[in-house]
Amino acid sequence: MKREAIRATVQAYVDAVGATDPDAVLALYAPDATVEDPVGTDAHRGRDAIAAFYAKSAGYHNESELLDCRISGDNAAFRFRITTTLPERTVEVTPIDVMTFDEDARITSMQAFWHTSDYRVVRPR
Amino acid sequence: MKREAIRATVQAYVDAVGATDPDAVLALYAPDATVEDPVGTDAHRGRDAIAAFYAKSAGYHNESELLDCRISGDNAAFRFRITTTLPERTVEVTPIDVMTFDEDARITSMQAFWHTSDYRVVRPR
Repeated sequence: MKREAIRATVQAYVDAVGATDPDAVLALYAPDATVEDPVGTDAHRGRDAIAAFYAKSAGYHNESELLDCRISGDNAAFRFRITTTLPERTVEVTPIDVMTFDEDARITSMQAFWHTSDYRVVRPR
Repeated sequence: MKREAIRATVQAYVDAVGATDPDAVLALYAPDATVEDPVGTDAHRGRDAIAAFYAKSAGYHNESELLDCRISGDNAAFRFRITTTLPERTVEVTPIDVMTFDEDARITSMQAFWHTSDYRVVRPR
């Protein structure tokens, strides 16, 4: 069922982001997908641009948890927690992401809603 | 500040939906706005079509609460709880809505992510 396939892609996305695994993240995207993160900035278009974008997050230890997911037609909006351990502190943010999907439940577009002021320091060093 | 104006519009929207006040809801929209609710269905375009859409919800007692709001550029994604008392039961749903805004923080587009399977019966009659 399409809804279950979409839900599985969303869960796999959150897991792969939490595992800081850019290749696993990239495999969930359709070749001509777009990524707008955060919303309001220029979108990254296509696998190469998306790969470069996610590669920037490699090297940090992250944890992630899918908190809420709403699937509507062939679209999903979901809230998740991502914890990032930087050299000087551990920070946490709970973005809301919106995705569209193709027939194989691959991501055709992603939009991430968050702002730097949403970050919360959970552990100073 | 634009972010605070957007946040105020989101809160006013959730409050007006909870109060089952279609006029108050409508006043938050720009004249040429679009409403896609749920996402994946045809959008309602313009004040008259949007007014007709919200008028359908009049007559039920609702409660509402804004749970999470992420503002990104001139856009917002937010999760809220809406409780609706129907003749035979009380139901609850927590959609995720996405909105864009004009310079006056009026809503230019709304997309509501939810599915009938997300409804939860909180009080049978």
